[in-house]
Amino acid sequence: MADFVSKRQFTIDWAYCDPAGIVFNGRFFEFFDTSAWLLFEAALGVKPHQMASTFDILGVPLVDARAKFMLPAKFGDLVEMQSWIGEIRRSSFDVRHQLFVDGKLGVDGTETRVWAALDPKTGHIKSKPIPSAVVEKFRDPE
Amino acid sequence: MADFVSKRQFTIDWAYCDPAGIVFNGRFFEFFDTSAWLLFEAALGVKPHQMASTFDILGVPLVDARAKFMLPAKFGDLVEMQSWIGEIRRSSFDVRHQLFVDGKLGVDGTETRVWAALDPKTGHIKSKPIPSAVVEKFRDPE
Amino acid sequence: MADFVSKRQFTIDWAYCDPAGIVFNGRFFEFFDTSAWLLFEAALGVKPHQMASTFDILGVPLVDARAKFMLPAKFGDLVEMQSWIGEIRRSSFDVRHQLFVDGKLGVDGTETRVWAALDPKTGHIKSKPIPSAVVEKFRDPE
Amino acid sequence: MADFVSKRQFTIDWAYCDPAGIVFNGRFFEFFDTSAWLLFEAALGVKPHQMASTFDILGVPLVDARAKFMLPAKFGDLVEMQSWIGEIRRSSFDVRHQLFVDGKLGVDGTETRVWAALDPKTGHIKSKPIPSAVVEKFRDPE
Repeated sequence: MADFVSKRQFTIDWAYCDPAGIVFNGRFFEFFDTSAWLLFEAALGVKPHQMASTFDILGVPLVDARAKFMLPAKFGDLVEMQSWIGEIRRSSFDVRHQLFVDGKLGVDGTETRVWAALDPKTGHIKSKPIPSAVVEKFRDPE
Repeated sequence: MADFVSKRQFTIDWAYCDPAGIVFNGRFFEFFDTSAWLLFEAALGVKPHQMASTFDILGVPLVDARAKFMLPAKFGDLVEMQSWIGEIRRSSFDVRHQLFVDGKLGVDGTETRVWAALDPKTGHIKSKPIPSAVVEKFRDPE
Repeated sequence: MADFVSKRQFTIDWAYCDPAGIVFNGRFFEFFDTSAWLLFEAALGVKPHQMASTFDILGVPLVDARAKFMLPAKFGDLVEMQSWIGEIRRSSFDVRHQLFVDGKLGVDGTETRVWAALDPKTGHIKSKPIPSAVVEKFRDPE
Repeated sequence: MADFVSKRQFTIDWAYCDPAGIVFNGRFFEFFDTSAWLLFEAALGVKPHQMASTFDILGVPLVDARAKFMLPAKFGDLVEMQSWIGEIRRSSFDVRHQLFVDGKLGVDGTETRVWAALDPKTGHIKSKPIPSAVVEKFRDPE
């Protein structure tokens, strides 16, 4: 079964670009984050600000982020982000992001996020198992 | 009596600059904000994260920000920010910021901030009078 | 005659928001900048990266930016930016920006930009008169 | 021989933090970039804006960036960045970055950068061998 892929197109803003005239690398991680929230909403049918209360978690904090930069994106470029859930483990999962510039793969990124709750005993954040209903929707939205 | 002026020097990062090779205007408002917090700490002797509890306020939210841009700041430029409390009104006050590039005034900015608390009746944020002890320290730190 | 107003709607990203849960003020100036470029393109029929060569200018650098913050915008809020050309002077002009949150005016901003070229004699940037064709299109696009 | 480690301390600004009250992940990549430039200057004795002309390159563009996030950094935290040159290959090299919060490793990151020049034949950017003098200074500054 094909993965569910969340897509969005947007134009590269002047404010995103550095003196080389291309998107500064840190901005791509903003793009990833925004796409991750859109993907969660599309897959789970839950608004971002309702995720914590709906699933009794603190959130899905990032524990790892990485990207390969193959092609630059410049001011005014129309780009497409494609994002989907990658590997799902017991209490963490990957969100995959690919940004296409002019139809070619420009940036290939991965976020690793943790299903995280507050441990009532210690008061610290700890990972907890991703509910099977969430896993199912991540794997096969709708 | 001379105003108390909080000063800091820093170097302009690559990530702050846009394709024109100069600091993007929105970044100056980040510089202002950071300098405002440093100024509050220096003038009031209170750490930023303790301001709310110390003064029983929600914070000092911005209601107006403005800047004139006279000279650009470029990647690698060593700049100096000078910040001080400007006009103080009943429940709001101005924070003045000047950024010097190579000893010359490059950016002249002003933030207007409100002394704000939660109205226990309505649950909304509302301004409240700035305590005279705060006004005194704003006018004459130490 | 009514002014030409460029409108765009977008959702507030997590990355735009600060620990108070609302858009950090510097980000609004990014929104203004992006809307300014869209407005120029709509009004003048020229792509942003073609403005310099089309009009034989270096660009339209910002010399003044200001905003009043009336209502906060939060993560997930759908907002609408409305932008239009305000006052036009000999060699500078205002771009007005209003951001609506839930239909209410949340941020009211103005950029002042200069029609700027390189002075061939001195090698410095200097303002030059805005061409009447540009003034006309700014006043009455299409 | 011990690696040369470039260190800097700074305080986490309000503007860097997201609604969870912690530094947004994309900002760490700004910190990495800034530290990378400082490291290059310290190791090579060349100012950032002189690197291109000194070494006849276009620059050292990023082709890969990654980070593990172990501990959050909050508004007001004093953090220390430690950065050094990691693996050096024929025409690319790693810059390693570790951010310490309260003396504990909070973020562990790596940038991979390419020694890049313009190919006079094609007009495209291409990697070229890192000069041995640079490799030596990267390995053993001063």
